[in-house]
Amino acid sequence: MLKIGIVTISDRASAGIYEDKSGLEIEKFLKEQITNKFEILYRLIPDDYEKIVKTLKELVELKCSLILTTGGTGPAKRDVTPEATKAVIEKELPGFGELMRMHSLQYVPTAILSRSIAGVIENSFILNLPGSPKAIRENLEAVWSAIPYTVDLIEGEYIESPNAFRPKKSK
Amino acid sequence: MLKIGIVTISDRASAGIYEDKSGLEIEKFLKEQITNKFEILYRLIPDDYEKIVKTLKELVELKCSLILTTGGTGPAKRDVTPEATKAVIEKELPGFGELMRMHSLQYVPTAILSRSIAGVIENSFILNLPGSPKAIRENLEAVWSAIPYTVDLIEGEYIESPNAFRPKKSK
Amino acid sequence: MLKIGIVTISDRASAGIYEDKSGLEIEKFLKEQITNKFEILYRLIPDDYEKIVKTLKELVELKCSLILTTGGTGPAKRDVTPEATKAVIEKELPGFGELMRMHSLQYVPTAILSRSIAGVIENSFILNLPGSPKAIRENLEAVWSAIPYTVDLIEGEYIESPNAFRPKKSK
Repeated sequence: MLKIGIVTISDRASAGIYEDKSGLEIEKFLKEQITNKFEILYRLIPDDYEKIVKTLKELVELKCSLILTTGGTGPAKRDVTPEATKAVIEKELPGFGELMRMHSLQYVPTAILSRSIAGVIENSFILNLPGSPKAIRENLEAVWSAIPYTVDLIEGEYIESPNAFRPKKSK
Repeated sequence: MLKIGIVTISDRASAGIYEDKSGLEIEKFLKEQITNKFEILYRLIPDDYEKIVKTLKELVELKCSLILTTGGTGPAKRDVTPEATKAVIEKELPGFGELMRMHSLQYVPTAILSRSIAGVIENSFILNLPGSPKAIRENLEAVWSAIPYTVDLIEGEYIESPNAFRPKKSK
Repeated sequence: MLKIGIVTISDRASAGIYEDKSGLEIEKFLKEQITNKFEILYRLIPDDYEKIVKTLKELVELKCSLILTTGGTGPAKRDVTPEATKAVIEKELPGFGELMRMHSLQYVPTAILSRSIAGVIENSFILNLPGSPKAIRENLEAVWSAIPYTVDLIEGEYIESPNAFRPKKSK
């Protein structure tokens, strides 16, 4: 069965200072978009490089076809999500971060501050999303249609979604 | 004389399973665009990291001012063209990949899956193109006008092309 | 007090062959945009990797909240500004280079040749700008509104500017 990891990376949410609305927003989006059965593996961790690396590796081992992180993508001292992601992936896909930033520029000029990256390892596709629920939705809307086919290409589980785009093989 | 390398990277085409239409499409495009005399050095190799590195280095030594690769830019296991290219180049030019992806987004949402990079080494400019003939043309159309001047700047041979853009030196 | 570094990187300007109009253009732009008091630390150096690294590190130690470089961002042999910047920064912010290139494409197809990068180290934000005064202004106009908030996030000094965009914290 299709498994999807949601990793909320936030010092404050993981300390219980506030509720993790970001992880919930990702879950809500996935339930709107995906029409086959899937299981969510949820993790809430602080902005700690080693913990992020360990959590991502664990979700890869647990065969998550898709792993979405939220938080830690900015330029501040504690923001280390892209570095931790880079340490885990085998191949980076720069087009996802580029398009998310370009798309978010419609809403705020500070969209260019996001350092989100995307990449693959084994049969998992990992994508960094920003921390705010509003930005999460904007970013996912920008790139969602390309995600199911990305997962096909790395031989992850099939993601059934009306908005997925799967090109016909020309050769 | 101007030399241009065309490197088709494909397990199946190199095994003779199908014809290399991609390399032919690049050749056709170059003949449409370039008005001075040039020689094409053509290579057809499998998606093998070491072979790609060796082939690119050989074409640099043979003084190709421009080296265009096709294939192996996606996220699948066998796609290693960008990694091999990165191992060969001295300087990466991220703007080419960015523009090719943005341009291709007009046609397909999965354009962001391309991990194409561009870079220079000695007097050679190397550019990764996607695998499908249709996408090759779309991508080349997006960036062609900037290629002859790039080759000028790295002291490669002159490329004469009606669609080339060469800024007047302001200083 | 707010300190801003301007680093002109040019073999010819640093040898006195021509006047550094690029550094002057950056200074002019800053004076138009920033309404609180600030001090400019100006450096004029050749396209030398070690000298660029040393100069950037010195300006970081001198607590420049913002460091703007001009020159050395192209693909030519002597262009090493991005590599030197990468060696100094702790975190890269790819969105700045992406947006500057996309914006400049409105003016010239060769905008994609710029290899400008941006990044942070300690409390300093470093941004590479191209060499020509005209391109400097175009590039700064594209990203200026996001710069003061970037400096806020890395705990640099406050930059007061009517065109700055500072999002309200949602959490």
